[in-house]
Amino acid sequence: MRLGEIGEMGLIKLLSRDTILSPAGVRVGIGDDTAVLEPGENRLLLATVDMLLEGEHFLPETITPRALGHKALAVNLSDIAAMGGVARHALVAIGIPADREVEEIEAIYAGMKELAGQYGVNIVGGDTVRSPRGLVVSVTVLGEVEEENLTLRSAARVGDKILVTGDLGKSQAGLALLLGKTKHPLPEAVAREATEAHCYPRPRLREIRTLLATGAVRAVNDISDGLAKDLGEIAESSGVGAELWPEEIPISGATRAVAAAAGEDPLAYALYGGEDFELLFTADPQGVEALLACGQREGIPLKVIGEVKPAAAGLTLRWRDGRVQALRPGGWDHFQGQGEGR
Amino acid sequence: MRLGEIGEMGLIKLLSRDTILSPAGVRVGIGDDTAVLEPGENRLLLATVDMLLEGEHFLPETITPRALGHKALAVNLSDIAAMGGVARHALVAIGIPADREVEEIEAIYAGMKELAGQYGVNIVGGDTVRSPRGLVVSVTVLGEVEEENLTLRSAARVGDKILVTGDLGKSQAGLALLLGKTKHPLPEAVAREATEAHCYPRPRLREIRTLLATGAVRAVNDISDGLAKDLGEIAESSGVGAELWPEEIPISGATRAVAAAAGEDPLAYALYGGEDFELLFTADPQGVEALLACGQREGIPLKVIGEVKPAAAGLTLRWRDGRVQALRPGGWDHFQGQGEGR
Repeated sequence: MRLGEIGEMGLIKLLSRDTILSPAGVRVGIGDDTAVLEPGENRLLLATVDMLLEGEHFLPETITPRALGHKALAVNLSDIAAMGGVARHALVAIGIPADREVEEIEAIYAGMKELAGQYGVNIVGGDTVRSPRGLVVSVTVLGEVEEENLTLRSAARVGDKILVTGDLGKSQAGLALLLGKTKHPLPEAVAREATEAHCYPRPRLREIRTLLATGAVRAVNDISDGLAKDLGEIAESSGVGAELWPEEIPISGATRAVAAAAGEDPLAYALYGGEDFELLFTADPQGVEALLACGQREGIPLKVIGEVKPAAAGLTLRWRDGRVQALRPGGWDHFQGQGEGR
Repeated sequence: MRLGEIGEMGLIKLLSRDTILSPAGVRVGIGDDTAVLEPGENRLLLATVDMLLEGEHFLPETITPRALGHKALAVNLSDIAAMGGVARHALVAIGIPADREVEEIEAIYAGMKELAGQYGVNIVGGDTVRSPRGLVVSVTVLGEVEEENLTLRSAARVGDKILVTGDLGKSQAGLALLLGKTKHPLPEAVAREATEAHCYPRPRLREIRTLLATGAVRAVNDISDGLAKDLGEIAESSGVGAELWPEEIPISGATRAVAAAAGEDPLAYALYGGEDFELLFTADPQGVEALLACGQREGIPLKVIGEVKPAAAGLTLRWRDGRVQALRPGGWDHFQGQGEGR
């Protein structure tokens, strides 16, 4: 069915189904001029927005509508996780070319609602408009955090250890596969692992809350633009430097296999690829053992990959054989194109 | 200067200047993963988003960058006003074609900041991305309202009077002028009044708070899609019908002059034109006198234009000579194009 047949109100009615999953705190969802919400007592309010544009952030050839919906919400949930918070509500502004099928838009929402359901996030509002050119999805997420759990980028201190969850470079590996950059076929399990990571990133919302209980977590960022750039943001905000230990950076076998098949460097995927949506954080060195034990107990993959240094040291890679080299900022710049290290 | 020269971080630094106008309640603005805000005590949280797309909602030929920034924020502030609330914070997601000049983007933000400054609204976050095709501006606004001041669309009761602020159809008149639909030149003051209304709509944020003090205001909507459609939304939400008195609908001399020069019906502008961002509301009939007196005292133009009827009566126009006709829903539907009455 074409959008023109169902109209704006028809589409909104269709998309509004099953949007309130945690009714507590929602006075009014979709259907009035604004959403009306009850803020949590003694909580700080978190608010973030991310906009995905067809042709820039995604291509119809490399992502399904359902994965697009998942990803558009996931990138915002990851930002809430990076503040130590709990995600509560989403507002979805979507621009849709008039020739699209209603089923495609429903699939985008299905992907979003599926992920929202896993974290008790409500879709409480939005804007549904016609786009003259290409799909546009802009998702705003509201969350909450207790004062004591707020994890700012500026909280890193010299001597902190640097940790990451999961493994890095996998989203870039998935993209390389989807773009047909690999020069020979790969085992199906490898291909699936990499493309799933690219299309269905898992925000680390539960993991951050578990790790916070150790009291050892300090500055946090999520890996959206690549480890190098996201670490650079912590360093700049905190007024510190940092050294990374490249051999310690977790890179999966699947990521290495894809990189090899594409003739590219898996470490470059990890440093500059971005979109892994893992957590990058610094921790009180006294608490690292407790953190690693917590990770093991709770099934959260955690790795120590470096150390916070004084600002004068800048950002460096220190190899096991003692070599030290400057870490190029790299990562993704939306206007200058790919970072130099990429 | 081109965007490619300054880069994403350079642009964000430039645009982040002077964004926090009411620092109370803002723990972290632009610069971390999310904004961190302190919700007001004993307040409900309001959240709304509107997306404007080049080629659909605006044309570079008919709107300046500064007016675009103003409008992108104003449409959201108007939604907060329609809930009886106070606007607090905005998040701005913007997609920018790479060939645009930095100065154009700065002008968009200047228009937004100017309006934000008038209402103490902070810009606390956003997303700045490259757009492959056309400008995209998606603004999210957060506001607050006391429980007792919340004005839902569903609160209209049979017997309520229907009122509007200001005058209607003026934005449509401005658009007709900008599109060159008028067949002869108009006095400069007329042209200025109409185009200002279209390009720089004034959200009625202060007015609603003043009027709420009378205790007579019930259901409220803002006129974004046209009087007919916006009244229809109140009627549907409240489970009522309504009759409008067409001769009472306030239409300015400038709007009438533009409509005449374009060979169009000024009443159609008022009923179906939209984007006036005036307040449409129903009021306890016992409180109408107090409301009108309040309007006069405070300089808020107010007009009684109809009455709420039982649902079975539907939506009608009742002329002074006794004729009654069905009010076609009309207004703007984003996917079906212009409403039939337009």
